[in-house]
Amino acid sequence: MEGVSFPYRADLGSKLLSAIAGERIIALYFIGSTLTSTIPGISIAGATPELTLYTPACDVEYLVLGRPASLDVVPVTPEGIPTPALITRAALRAADIPCLVVDCGSYVEPAVPHVALPSKRVGGRIDSGSALPYDTAAKLMSESELLARCLCSRGCTVVLGESIPGGTTTALGILAALGYEAWGKVSSAGPENPHRLKEAVVKEGLAKSGLASKGKTDDPVEAVSAVGDPVHISLAGFLIGALSKGSHVILAGGTQMAAVLAIAKRAGAALEGRVAVATTRWVVEDLSSDIVGLIKEVAPEVPIVAAALNFSNSPFKGLKYYEEGYVKEGVGAGGAVAAALASGRASLPDIYKAIFSEYARLLELGALKQQI
Amino acid sequence: MEGVSFPYRADLGSKLLSAIAGERIIALYFIGSTLTSTIPGISIAGATPELTLYTPACDVEYLVLGRPASLDVVPVTPEGIPTPALITRAALRAADIPCLVVDCGSYVEPAVPHVALPSKRVGGRIDSGSALPYDTAAKLMSESELLARCLCSRGCTVVLGESIPGGTTTALGILAALGYEAWGKVSSAGPENPHRLKEAVVKEGLAKSGLASKGKTDDPVEAVSAVGDPVHISLAGFLIGALSKGSHVILAGGTQMAAVLAIAKRAGAALEGRVAVATTRWVVEDLSSDIVGLIKEVAPEVPIVAAALNFSNSPFKGLKYYEEGYVKEGVGAGGAVAAALASGRASLPDIYKAIFSEYARLLELGALKQQI
Repeated sequence: MEGVSFPYRADLGSKLLSAIAGERIIALYFIGSTLTSTIPGISIAGATPELTLYTPACDVEYLVLGRPASLDVVPVTPEGIPTPALITRAALRAADIPCLVVDCGSYVEPAVPHVALPSKRVGGRIDSGSALPYDTAAKLMSESELLARCLCSRGCTVVLGESIPGGTTTALGILAALGYEAWGKVSSAGPENPHRLKEAVVKEGLAKSGLASKGKTDDPVEAVSAVGDPVHISLAGFLIGALSKGSHVILAGGTQMAAVLAIAKRAGAALEGRVAVATTRWVVEDLSSDIVGLIKEVAPEVPIVAAALNFSNSPFKGLKYYEEGYVKEGVGAGGAVAAALASGRASLPDIYKAIFSEYARLLELGALKQQI
Repeated sequence: MEGVSFPYRADLGSKLLSAIAGERIIALYFIGSTLTSTIPGISIAGATPELTLYTPACDVEYLVLGRPASLDVVPVTPEGIPTPALITRAALRAADIPCLVVDCGSYVEPAVPHVALPSKRVGGRIDSGSALPYDTAAKLMSESELLARCLCSRGCTVVLGESIPGGTTTALGILAALGYEAWGKVSSAGPENPHRLKEAVVKEGLAKSGLASKGKTDDPVEAVSAVGDPVHISLAGFLIGALSKGSHVILAGGTQMAAVLAIAKRAGAALEGRVAVATTRWVVEDLSSDIVGLIKEVAPEVPIVAAALNFSNSPFKGLKYYEEGYVKEGVGAGGAVAAALASGRASLPDIYKAIFSEYARLLELGALKQQI
């Protein structure tokens, strides 16, 4: 398939993409906040650490409405590079893929229609070791599983994306708490991956929660409650529910999806042949992280699909930054492109065209903080 | 098709049902409250007038979870007859039809995952002439249209149901405000239809709002703002959005759906060949209301489909009451049965079996107020 590569388990990956060609596809975007993103240096998914708390709501407002609502600009990095939701929006629209937002605990309630999980809650700083009350984490998982059981059916493919600034750090926390060797393997939205800071934050949280002395836990809810966040456990719950209804699932995201798979596997989900991780070429080629290594360790039966986008020839500087290691992935950008291509309703040129005209539209709208 | 009759425009109705057989189907349940339901005598969709405010949340909690959550019993009439959501749940499950709840302004937030419209708001008593702020009514319509544009696509059929106690009275208000001859034509959940009370409530609201002196309005938002409620306008917005994406729409409900059609038509929607009203035999055969007359007047191009359920031989007294004029319809019961049959994934005997075993399960669960 033009526009897609298979960096891991190509056999399973291409089989899965072919299988979903005739299915109905729906994309869901799980959003939430963790105060971890306000620790300086952790996240560049916002112009300042404080603004990262607004990013999930603004991401999905832009995704759905085509313009920001809670703030007057779309989320940008401190350099002014716009949210990857731009790619997601362009790809979904090019292939007419329905979508739905799920709020698991966004600091700001998005000003667009969205599913609210009854137990939604902003996650605490994970260096405190108290990310979420145990009961809240457990309820988010079961509520999200219930949502999947309502929405999914056989013959349906669900594409699951996320927006949670600080998410690679909390993903690292979840993986570490569950005993996986994930240090230095999670990705970053910046060209300099702050591994040491992430590791310090997670280790402090593990120590404070008592998990460090215990070694690890086999209970995914305990791991999330200590050093996780509201989004990854909700994604895992949805994944479990969708699989139980016979749906295919594309986990649209980078290294964070290893944490989702880890939670689901510990909860007993059977993934083989039903699930793929779909991300971008930028994540796969990133030398400062190791998505293939992570997935191999956590769920070796899950293939990785990569959208082979290349913005070297982009007419816009804000997109060229992707080739310098900025952003890389987010709001399920890679998975949206892969799903659009797999649906057969959009070609790679269609998608490039949609991305560029979307970027131009945002510029005209004045919704980019600066013209870069 | 066994189990379905076509009381109006059989040609269009049967064509539409055949068309949706191969489509993906999703059912959405729009809930909301109007303080109108607390006027004694207006609604029996709850054991007392005050409990009618809990009914929308309890209906969808039961629909999704299979048990009540906000209260410890499922909604019942004062006689103890359980909510028609029982039929809806059984039919959706028999045909594996996905569903989603949309909160437009429920007095109680449902304890299950649901879409929250950002402008959701409980409606005021319509005898005050101030049901909703104009701006709120307009926003509910556009937010719901946006939700439809996200969720719907060509090749998709959406089934739209509602739960709003007092809804036939607010529907009458909307129809009257828009200048339709609807007096005495809306249905009731009781065997005695309180037409005079409904008419008095609506006329007082029309007088207080100033619409009575004006005669009527052509602005559906103004009509809803004066004597409507949050649910009908949201349904109309969704209908408009779904049609714009090329979807088919089944309006699953009784006479209230005439108000939805009236709003959508005044807003310029083209309905022919894309929309049907699907209800129950009990509504169609009801001598105290006139669904065919209403639809003919409001949208003569829209066929009516009726699920030909008959509970005369039901093993449960609570269902036999349907044959005596109680309940009749609600939470899209008739439309769920029609959609299940049209999907080809459930037969009429399958659906009866599902309804009876669901009733037995609720009895065992102790979730019915009394064993009737």
